[in-house]
Amino acid sequence: MANVLISTIPFASHDRLPLELLDSVGAHVTINPMGRRLKEHELAELIAATEILIAGTEPITRKVMEAAPNLRLIARVGVGLDNVDLAAAWDRGIQVTYTPEAPAPAVAELTVGLMVSLLRHTHTANVLLHDGQWHRFMGRRIGESTIGVIGVGRIGSRVIQILSSFGVRHFIANDVDPQVDFFQGINIKWVGQDTIFREADIVTVHVPLTPHTRNMVGRSQLDLMKEDAILVNTSRGGVVDEDALVRALQDGRLGGAAIDVFAHEPYSGPLTQEPRCLLTSHMGSMSIDCRIRMEVEAAEEAVRFLTGNSTLSPVPEREYLIQAQ
Amino acid sequence: MANVLISTIPFASHDRLPLELLDSVGAHVTINPMGRRLKEHELAELIAATEILIAGTEPITRKVMEAAPNLRLIARVGVGLDNVDLAAAWDRGIQVTYTPEAPAPAVAELTVGLMVSLLRHTHTANVLLHDGQWHRFMGRRIGESTIGVIGVGRIGSRVIQILSSFGVRHFIANDVDPQVDFFQGINIKWVGQDTIFREADIVTVHVPLTPHTRNMVGRSQLDLMKEDAILVNTSRGGVVDEDALVRALQDGRLGGAAIDVFAHEPYSGPLTQEPRCLLTSHMGSMSIDCRIRMEVEAAEEAVRFLTGNSTLSPVPEREYLIQAQ
Repeated sequence: MANVLISTIPFASHDRLPLELLDSVGAHVTINPMGRRLKEHELAELIAATEILIAGTEPITRKVMEAAPNLRLIARVGVGLDNVDLAAAWDRGIQVTYTPEAPAPAVAELTVGLMVSLLRHTHTANVLLHDGQWHRFMGRRIGESTIGVIGVGRIGSRVIQILSSFGVRHFIANDVDPQVDFFQGINIKWVGQDTIFREADIVTVHVPLTPHTRNMVGRSQLDLMKEDAILVNTSRGGVVDEDALVRALQDGRLGGAAIDVFAHEPYSGPLTQEPRCLLTSHMGSMSIDCRIRMEVEAAEEAVRFLTGNSTLSPVPEREYLIQAQ
Repeated sequence: MANVLISTIPFASHDRLPLELLDSVGAHVTINPMGRRLKEHELAELIAATEILIAGTEPITRKVMEAAPNLRLIARVGVGLDNVDLAAAWDRGIQVTYTPEAPAPAVAELTVGLMVSLLRHTHTANVLLHDGQWHRFMGRRIGESTIGVIGVGRIGSRVIQILSSFGVRHFIANDVDPQVDFFQGINIKWVGQDTIFREADIVTVHVPLTPHTRNMVGRSQLDLMKEDAILVNTSRGGVVDEDALVRALQDGRLGGAAIDVFAHEPYSGPLTQEPRCLLTSHMGSMSIDCRIRMEVEAAEEAVRFLTGNSTLSPVPEREYLIQAQ
């Protein structure tokens, strides 16, 4: 009977199918007993007898893997791999799978919603009104904005698709591999990152966290931005230099920021003191339908592995190469 | 020299063009000195010597018109006419114009943004995080929702257009004059209002306030709604029975509500005590571009009138008939 550790939380909270799938192949399942994101040493303790890890964003380091001599599969519930030491997994012959498509619709919707909240000050008006204060905030429209998208993959392309129906006329985009033909009927200019920071009214970031993207949005990039431009980050925390963002907001620069992801989560740092920073708690993929899909896809990988079948979404080789750079 | 009273606020705060237009024809302009929505008696005092009123949503009653013997034109900055006694204007030979197209893009964007906030709990997560509390709310997606739209005119149709790009598969809609052919490629079922309340995950209301629509969303309609359905009202306050909504939310019914408009504004009533009610301060049209367009269009009507030309958007006869019913 295989030992399966589910370290990601929540799990199976709205649909028991992922657990039923694991039950159906007789897996012995342990669910993260802390009810929160595990620290490295906590995971290292829990993982000792585990053969399959169904994982969230907790640190799955070489040390953790060394503590799990029987570990054969890490099935990520989600798409980001910055928390998994892929080289260590490779060295130890541990397969890694992920669910690259599942979170995209939920992350894209959240991203667009955060943009409207920021541009129209709805979250602020809500707090004031609940406090008895009526203030009609003047805002701006998405349709009138120049949208800058850095990273036009599964999520960035969906964001563009949705925003185009708001009547956006100016998209400027940057990607390591620009899909020039992908957006028929949508006017996208592929430009350098500096141009995006300089010209966009809204900058939204949809890149993985890699050695190349760490602190990609730092002081010099924020300095390039228009004084009323807004920044949205629903990708990974390390991509935006939080200290630089705090400083920019404190200096009265930017029109605001919406930050869903943080270098250290749960987050309780200085951005919580910035009223012009709209903060959410890594909720990009947290819609019931996407979460269920992610969990089911990860559980199905475990089932395939345990029944001797090939996994469906092994992490592709390029991800190992990127992390090794 | 014609006396022009501008009772709507804010006015010309981002672009002086509307004032320059009035200056160009030598108008003597007075701007609402209270900096807030005028009460009936305040407007009656201010309006005495006025020939042209450039108006917001303050009550322009028969009594107000009787206090303004020289009033010849009411140019509404906006589209709703529930605050203008059209019969009294007719009786006194006062022309009424409005700006029906200008607010639609801003109202539609706000409506969609409020839906995402409600479904994903972003405004709540923001308050918690600024208070040092990390909670990953599980939400729902627009793309997975059945959207019920009551009132598919300038604004409702834009909302449908935008939401369709989220991948919505089920629109149910109701209108006094269903534009069946308008939405090619979008799957809309035209149904009775009760069906909308019963089947929609999101109910959004885009009707004018008339004798027919007053308290259109009352206790019996709220009782029909799914237990996790959400209600969005960016139209007019009187359309939703606020007491009934308070009761529904207090009873733990509905998934939440987003309310931008109120029977009495500025609002400070019991909905402010409901954490599951996302409140904004009549901000539907409050985007810089739409506000400028509305103000310029209203000022242009005044200029046309003063230079002996026909106005461009006189309120159509059917609006007088609806109000008379």
